[in-house]
Amino acid sequence: MTQALRLGIAGLGTVGVGVVKIVRRHAELLQARTGRPIEIVAVSARDAAKDRGVNLSGFAWETDPVALAKRDDIDVFVELMGGENGPAKASVEAALATGKDVVTANKALLAIHGQALAEQAEAAGRVIRFEAAVAGGIPVIKSLTEGLAGNDIKRVMGVMNGTCNYILTRMQSQGLGYNALFEECAQLGYLEADPNLDVGGIDAAHKLALLASIAFGTKPNFDGIEIEGIQHISLDDIHQADDMGYRIKLLGVAQRTPRGLEQRMQPCLVPSDSPLGQLEGGTNMVVIEGDAVEQIVLRGPGAGEGPTASAVMGDVCDLARGLRISTFGQPATSLVDSKPAITGLPAPYYLRLELLDKPGALAKVAAILGNAGVSIDRMRQYAHAEDTAPVLIVTHKTTRATLDVALEDLRTTDVVAGEPVALRIEQV
Amino acid sequence: MTQALRLGIAGLGTVGVGVVKIVRRHAELLQARTGRPIEIVAVSARDAAKDRGVNLSGFAWETDPVALAKRDDIDVFVELMGGENGPAKASVEAALATGKDVVTANKALLAIHGQALAEQAEAAGRVIRFEAAVAGGIPVIKSLTEGLAGNDIKRVMGVMNGTCNYILTRMQSQGLGYNALFEECAQLGYLEADPNLDVGGIDAAHKLALLASIAFGTKPNFDGIEIEGIQHISLDDIHQADDMGYRIKLLGVAQRTPRGLEQRMQPCLVPSDSPLGQLEGGTNMVVIEGDAVEQIVLRGPGAGEGPTASAVMGDVCDLARGLRISTFGQPATSLVDSKPAITGLPAPYYLRLELLDKPGALAKVAAILGNAGVSIDRMRQYAHAEDTAPVLIVTHKTTRATLDVALEDLRTTDVVAGEPVALRIEQV
Repeated sequence: MTQALRLGIAGLGTVGVGVVKIVRRHAELLQARTGRPIEIVAVSARDAAKDRGVNLSGFAWETDPVALAKRDDIDVFVELMGGENGPAKASVEAALATGKDVVTANKALLAIHGQALAEQAEAAGRVIRFEAAVAGGIPVIKSLTEGLAGNDIKRVMGVMNGTCNYILTRMQSQGLGYNALFEECAQLGYLEADPNLDVGGIDAAHKLALLASIAFGTKPNFDGIEIEGIQHISLDDIHQADDMGYRIKLLGVAQRTPRGLEQRMQPCLVPSDSPLGQLEGGTNMVVIEGDAVEQIVLRGPGAGEGPTASAVMGDVCDLARGLRISTFGQPATSLVDSKPAITGLPAPYYLRLELLDKPGALAKVAAILGNAGVSIDRMRQYAHAEDTAPVLIVTHKTTRATLDVALEDLRTTDVVAGEPVALRIEQV
Repeated sequence: MTQALRLGIAGLGTVGVGVVKIVRRHAELLQARTGRPIEIVAVSARDAAKDRGVNLSGFAWETDPVALAKRDDIDVFVELMGGENGPAKASVEAALATGKDVVTANKALLAIHGQALAEQAEAAGRVIRFEAAVAGGIPVIKSLTEGLAGNDIKRVMGVMNGTCNYILTRMQSQGLGYNALFEECAQLGYLEADPNLDVGGIDAAHKLALLASIAFGTKPNFDGIEIEGIQHISLDDIHQADDMGYRIKLLGVAQRTPRGLEQRMQPCLVPSDSPLGQLEGGTNMVVIEGDAVEQIVLRGPGAGEGPTASAVMGDVCDLARGLRISTFGQPATSLVDSKPAITGLPAPYYLRLELLDKPGALAKVAAILGNAGVSIDRMRQYAHAEDTAPVLIVTHKTTRATLDVALEDLRTTDVVAGEPVALRIEQV
């Protein structure tokens, strides 16, 4: 019999338990497909006594994940603890240093330390695989790195935080405000320990940094991402965008521009009838555009025990089959630094202003936009409620820098109440 | 410098020319990603004099693709001629016999001869790759074989013939009949030389046979597929299905049942608001359901120079990177024979009858269904036009065999005019 592939699993939360279940349930199937048995040899987690609903008695137990990583009876170190530093980083480094391949679901770790870790892996002749780190069960890393390797990638976009999409689509369908839905998510356990990772867009931005690196052959550059969360999206914007044929999504976009690499994670409007616009609830979607393939759309569950464990096992099966590839699709030492685009490519924008009930107010707004060079595609003024009236504007394509000049003037004029809302309309 | 991967390309139609363009345009990018140069050494096509819009003067020319396949200066034989027998089969066999790996876009060849060719390849230590054979640019073969290898696959479904989907969605949106759109497709060059391959469902069924083999570890079994084309879909059905919240798609479905492997390629109703229901025009979509991953949806262009060449190049890049895998995801000798399910899993059905204007006619129809054991979920009778009235029925879940008993009785009763229409409603 061919030698088994021996796994050490650090982290026995939802995903770790999911991996244990698959390895056990599909032992025969996995061997038929990969040509060799896949075995869990040892595990590590904080609390050995906790009942996780699976029998762990056949596995060696390490309280220290670094000790697990260093064991000489494992071939692959499966890191499912999370966190960009601490035990996750230390144990991945230890695994590589002692000759193990690494499979991880840790987007934060790779977004921040991916370059260094990829270099360490390659120097040691090992690989790091991370399908589970991006968009849960969707095989997007594989599709981008391997399936679409013949393309010059033009743009990668995605809705990659299920909690944010759940909140935004429930705002739309139930008419509930952001705060009520945030509380609901907290109670349902949909939020990270630090909720700002979700609603602040950071978790999704970690994922975008990894996709951008593969797509453009650049070092992962999390700090180069413009990040804006969904905390300030109001029901008014949800409904008024809908009236104009758009949905609001927390959308990550990475693309090359003449001024450098544009990486944004921010609420955007997308057409209601596009695949992204139609995406409801906690589902994720990644859109990849290449010069040959045109546009590919991948959709699936972005989190949860089964889907994330499926992605981990995809990587494990690759290693069992001897399929080995550079972390970000080409040797880490050949990845180049990306220059962040100071201002993104021009796009249409959605603006919402509260106009004060004064003669000539609308003319003043139109003049400010015109003077800044922002041209108006569509405008709607609604009836005055109390002393302000909502005005919605869809601009023609403009740069954010140009728009910011206009926004600054709108803020300081005497006809606009409160802060103007400006959201990019992504053409998909 | 690492040794180049040397290609011989047989077939210089749309796809072949697309591959030549990518290899030339992205020489540097491909080398960065795969670690070695990718070179075209020799080509073969019927007419050497024809202007294909690309410079072919740097390549050796073989008039006989078998001679090309046997050349000792190529590593990979890229078969882009098509056809299930003849030169395609002979040259692929010759390539494998003389130690070349094979990349092909030929769904017919593999659906019919895939088992024998996979066995030949494995005996010779070579691989056959065929991402381009299924759903054009969508990396579905890779996703299913590798990315989702940790799953027991429950069902694979797809809209995999762009021409059929174009006709069906234009019927819906333009109110044009099947015959008018068939003519339009003929003029636009959207049809195969034998149009029955498209509208008869055969081309899409070839693709389904390949997906089913990978999904279920079975030998490709094209003859085990129940095939029905779209030729008999009427505008009435399109519109009346729409009224009830459904779209009609030529849908391929493969799933394991207690009675064997169900493989169907037939017009089905799917909910209008599902991803499959929303799929417009020539775009393809494949839905994969696994026990761990739940449901993954992949969408993209199903044909055309760029998308198909992108898929070919994905396979070529894998070979350049040393990523090698069994043709159908596990050794060909381990694939088992599939027993075709005589009757598929129960499903709801859509029925359309033309009811004659007689007292008690509707009661008679209801009684026939009831006696056969088919229970009615929803029924609509429209007003009589001339001497018949359309009756639409959505049944509860029933087997096709049970339904066929009822249909036979409906045909022979004296209250139904013409042939009853029965279309399966696929739950997605």
